[in-house]
Amino acid sequence: MNTFGVRLRLTTYGESHGIAIGGVIDGLPSGVKIDLEFLQNELDRRKPGGKFATARKESDKVKILSGVFEGVSTGMPIGILIENEDQKSKDYSSVKDLFRPGHADFTYYHKYGIRDYRGGGRSSARESAIRVAGGALAQMMLDEFEIKVESGILGVGKAQTSDMDFNYAKTSEIYALGNEEEMKAEILKAKKSHDSVGGVVITKISNCPVGLGEVLYDKIDARLAGAMMGINAVKAVEIGAGTKVSQIYGSLNNDAINKNGFLSNNAGGILGGITNSDDIIIKTHFKPTPSIFISQDTININGDEVKCELKGRHDPCVAVRGSVVATAMARLVVADMLLLNASANLNSLKKIYSK
Amino acid sequence: MNTFGVRLRLTTYGESHGIAIGGVIDGLPSGVKIDLEFLQNELDRRKPGGKFATARKESDKVKILSGVFEGVSTGMPIGILIENEDQKSKDYSSVKDLFRPGHADFTYYHKYGIRDYRGGGRSSARESAIRVAGGALAQMMLDEFEIKVESGILGVGKAQTSDMDFNYAKTSEIYALGNEEEMKAEILKAKKSHDSVGGVVITKISNCPVGLGEVLYDKIDARLAGAMMGINAVKAVEIGAGTKVSQIYGSLNNDAINKNGFLSNNAGGILGGITNSDDIIIKTHFKPTPSIFISQDTININGDEVKCELKGRHDPCVAVRGSVVATAMARLVVADMLLLNASANLNSLKKIYSK
Amino acid sequence: MNTFGVRLRLTTYGESHGIAIGGVIDGLPSGVKIDLEFLQNELDRRKPGGKFATARKESDKVKILSGVFEGVSTGMPIGILIENEDQKSKDYSSVKDLFRPGHADFTYYHKYGIRDYRGGGRSSARESAIRVAGGALAQMMLDEFEIKVESGILGVGKAQTSDMDFNYAKTSEIYALGNEEEMKAEILKAKKSHDSVGGVVITKISNCPVGLGEVLYDKIDARLAGAMMGINAVKAVEIGAGTKVSQIYGSLNNDAINKNGFLSNNAGGILGGITNSDDIIIKTHFKPTPSIFISQDTININGDEVKCELKGRHDPCVAVRGSVVATAMARLVVADMLLLNASANLNSLKKIYSK
Amino acid sequence: MNTFGVRLRLTTYGESHGIAIGGVIDGLPSGVKIDLEFLQNELDRRKPGGKFATARKESDKVKILSGVFEGVSTGMPIGILIENEDQKSKDYSSVKDLFRPGHADFTYYHKYGIRDYRGGGRSSARESAIRVAGGALAQMMLDEFEIKVESGILGVGKAQTSDMDFNYAKTSEIYALGNEEEMKAEILKAKKSHDSVGGVVITKISNCPVGLGEVLYDKIDARLAGAMMGINAVKAVEIGAGTKVSQIYGSLNNDAINKNGFLSNNAGGILGGITNSDDIIIKTHFKPTPSIFISQDTININGDEVKCELKGRHDPCVAVRGSVVATAMARLVVADMLLLNASANLNSLKKIYSK
Repeated sequence: MNTFGVRLRLTTYGESHGIAIGGVIDGLPSGVKIDLEFLQNELDRRKPGGKFATARKESDKVKILSGVFEGVSTGMPIGILIENEDQKSKDYSSVKDLFRPGHADFTYYHKYGIRDYRGGGRSSARESAIRVAGGALAQMMLDEFEIKVESGILGVGKAQTSDMDFNYAKTSEIYALGNEEEMKAEILKAKKSHDSVGGVVITKISNCPVGLGEVLYDKIDARLAGAMMGINAVKAVEIGAGTKVSQIYGSLNNDAINKNGFLSNNAGGILGGITNSDDIIIKTHFKPTPSIFISQDTININGDEVKCELKGRHDPCVAVRGSVVATAMARLVVADMLLLNASANLNSLKKIYSK
Repeated sequence: MNTFGVRLRLTTYGESHGIAIGGVIDGLPSGVKIDLEFLQNELDRRKPGGKFATARKESDKVKILSGVFEGVSTGMPIGILIENEDQKSKDYSSVKDLFRPGHADFTYYHKYGIRDYRGGGRSSARESAIRVAGGALAQMMLDEFEIKVESGILGVGKAQTSDMDFNYAKTSEIYALGNEEEMKAEILKAKKSHDSVGGVVITKISNCPVGLGEVLYDKIDARLAGAMMGINAVKAVEIGAGTKVSQIYGSLNNDAINKNGFLSNNAGGILGGITNSDDIIIKTHFKPTPSIFISQDTININGDEVKCELKGRHDPCVAVRGSVVATAMARLVVADMLLLNASANLNSLKKIYSK
Repeated sequence: MNTFGVRLRLTTYGESHGIAIGGVIDGLPSGVKIDLEFLQNELDRRKPGGKFATARKESDKVKILSGVFEGVSTGMPIGILIENEDQKSKDYSSVKDLFRPGHADFTYYHKYGIRDYRGGGRSSARESAIRVAGGALAQMMLDEFEIKVESGILGVGKAQTSDMDFNYAKTSEIYALGNEEEMKAEILKAKKSHDSVGGVVITKISNCPVGLGEVLYDKIDARLAGAMMGINAVKAVEIGAGTKVSQIYGSLNNDAINKNGFLSNNAGGILGGITNSDDIIIKTHFKPTPSIFISQDTININGDEVKCELKGRHDPCVAVRGSVVATAMARLVVADMLLLNASANLNSLKKIYSK
Repeated sequence: MNTFGVRLRLTTYGESHGIAIGGVIDGLPSGVKIDLEFLQNELDRRKPGGKFATARKESDKVKILSGVFEGVSTGMPIGILIENEDQKSKDYSSVKDLFRPGHADFTYYHKYGIRDYRGGGRSSARESAIRVAGGALAQMMLDEFEIKVESGILGVGKAQTSDMDFNYAKTSEIYALGNEEEMKAEILKAKKSHDSVGGVVITKISNCPVGLGEVLYDKIDARLAGAMMGINAVKAVEIGAGTKVSQIYGSLNNDAINKNGFLSNNAGGILGGITNSDDIIIKTHFKPTPSIFISQDTININGDEVKCELKGRHDPCVAVRGSVVATAMARLVVADMLLLNASANLNSLKKIYSK
């Protein structure tokens, strides 16, 4: 339901226009140094604002309510809270009773018989701020093992790059892995035509030890695919060579091995659902933001055909801020798998329990 | 670990060359008619044999050990057993100590410090016979709600089709959705060159009620993506318009609605992680079988560089039999979500508990 | 870990002397009327204060942060928050490094290598306020099915009652089921001698439908036993005739049945782990509060033998406030089981999904 | 549902008079030596037969179907199978439609609308053979850490012992901890009067490391209580001083500590839900077998009042064989907690992942 993970678990709550959004991260081992500055920085990267994102104003100041004592984790659950500031009751009468195309309005209404129509309620991507906070906490543990997780934009609409320059992405306003100007132009073009545009995100996990992933129904690639597909607006996930594998021969796709390791990485760092220590490469496809400012056909809750005329503020390309969420989800998955793997092998356990 | 699902759970065990493979399906409601002929038929569709699959001989006769009484499910766990027939100890000395490229040998060995090297042990796709059995049992419940799940081959290597003719697929030897002859030729070409080839599978779920999928970390698209990515050899999963969404505008991608329903189906039947009653469309990309009969570079468990020279029998294109497994996984997911959704809404519960 | 329940899940966080305690209740169906007054009343029943409880001052005002819209539940997770008021940093130097006998100090320190020593940190019964809030929310759903859960005190030290008068308990300052004055005297006697005393709580669940409880490892009696034993200070749990059953004959213990139902209730409303519609009767034994104001032998974290000399404020009998927590846990269990049972039977499902 | 445990999971299936009973144990780490003789011996201890148990004939020969290679566990799920031999279709017409008092017939029928009436179907204690097999496999892992789990009978009806001599129990035909002859007489007396009698079991876990148990909703005492209460016929569970704690003062109940450890063990080896390295002591109360050969009042599925006149073979005192099951459940719990604890502390993890 609203909990992600097995041994490291993030539970979240909160709606777009409620009092607050928050969560609980449970299972972080004791002894992890908690870096509050890093935590806030990660949230700032996802924060609304600027030319390329929604104009919603949220400072997204995160509070830690528990689980940290004298600067380190205690092994107890960590309560996270972000108060919603810009949740003033604007006039929702125009969307209250209709189903915005591409949004979850239709399905939430039919499933639950009631919906919080203010800004999409729970289905809004606003909740992802807590995912980012959870991912940042997971990263603090991954840092102890020097595991790194990064994401960047590989394409926006027709503007693509073949670079995978994560340093470039760090300084890019839209987290582009290359070709930033063309991508920006594509976003602004969509925005000017009151429309939105899709995008592709690459996530790279590096320095992962061999052995993460549990057979057979909790493989790390299955978990990552689920994690990414569960992010708002995602419609496709690829690992390693991804969709290309279906068109090629085995002799081309298999990664040969020599003393220094794998000679190629079509596998994307995963064999049999378990990490092989190579970089894990995930490609995540985001659809264009469903909120556009062009008139659309729809129906209302009574079944009458009406026009959907949206006003307000929205991300012209959700993939940009979505890339920060993709990083967070990958961190949560890897940290969880690292914890789960601790009990896979008797020799590992003996290291812990030997006196 | 080796359990899939939340409310309808499939737990499996067994290795490629062990005594038997088996499983337990738990959570099937009482009162479902158990159709043993359908169960065996589904297994026969996945069974090895023929020109386009491995020559391994397995009759795959399935036994039900529990949970069925007088032809209907009792609500108790259903034990499933398939004995391995063709598990005679052939000579494994050539592969025993080396890591076959593209296989899980490397990762299993490093994770567990030991591996059953006979035919890949647990990492072999042989286990998927039990997934198929589990999926068939799930389908018997879905039948009560007239929900249908079908899969077919959309492409093999360079041979593609734009048809989505599931009736055609039913009679096709390789479950092709169209263009069967060209696809067959592509498979035989790979086989003749001692190689293998990838393929794409489409799975369609039709007549699904609105409301299946649990927010926010058990969305039906996330679950399907995880289920499909967890099948052996899968490297990419797409829902609805899939990878295409990242290149287009919102005005093109949003599915408008009128009195008769959705005017297009880029969403692939899912909005906000919840079914909207349209067909669910999933595209699953299988890599070429890693077992090829061409010499490959690898290392052994001592780190020495050696040649991997495989002999034996393998599917030239795993996507073909993989399509049967894709159907099974989709069935398990939909059935689980149907059960989970039963408790989402107080009105639903009142229907059950009213006296 | 810090999550209780399967389909209705309570996740909690927070320490005795942290900023706040809080939780998330997930899986409450949409459409349940949320009664904030009842919620606060339940918390007030558990609140510290008075002659028979600790003198800690907490108003325990609960805030709901999400999941409720226009007075009803939306099916989304409900965030609960209670700020700690009386958490001023008093002087902990006397207990910081020693292990208080009967407390979790020793085990937390050895398990986690660090502990929040302020008032017991996470191991404090303060967390149970959130259990009470969660239980109250669960009860709002149970109200829709007219299921009632009540607890009262059956005994304190040597002062016992054979009454099971839950109306009496409602007006009793110590929730006694009878014989209040003698019980109060027993508590005050322990308090005056700087000691504490144990107590027994009876919890009664009435008007429960037949069928709650999942075989074989999620039986409702197993779940209730785990829930009760997991409450701070509990050391024994009995269902129905409880410990007496081990000394009697089957002919005496079996509950005969006639047209009007069961002729006795030694089973305590549960057969084969499933409710039979009779009252569920649970007896929970609480140990005396481990915090006493008498000098005790212990060691510190360096292994030196020291005296533990506690000062401060503590419940002389934790069973009293514990009875409110027992009610809450029983509510959470029954509500969860009611949701789980919704998918046990095909006929039930057909009622929901019929068009 | 039919799965027990979190990290070490036992899933079982099978009915009393079905083809077979079986299970899957998942999560046993790789590298554990598998002792088939010990496994069979444990099953033989639970096996029916003899003067003090049912006369049902079952050799209970256990087969391992997977997960073991060259004598050690591979980390893969272990399939366990026991064929039912004595399941010949005897005449069930006398009990088919009526609800045997004290049995689960009534609740299974109402919950599922159908029941396998042959010998109680799934609700029969026959399933516990698989628990015993699972517990034996768990013990093989515990052996690596020198953790010991033992059970014995403390009382049968009015015949009690104050000894806790587990060596005596090993050679006792009824696993008595002392006073065997009087207990045997009590069982035979019940048997002769066509009745049955209850009993109490003590389980002792010794040499358990400090730190097992997960806060706050997976405490080891909560888990043990649930595990024991979930065994057929159990109605009460006590830990350490158990029910006595509710009648005494804190000064008497607290276990003081000195350099050599705890000076008493009222806590039963558990503080705050976490093991403190002292012996864990659990007392489990079994009701008398509900199957008795005296006429009883009941109703049938049509609601008619009828007499229940049982014939056949039943344990006069289920506690005897139940004690073997209690050991098994305790083993499963401790092994699971040992695995879970592996990821509690960053220092532990660093021991595993350091290169």
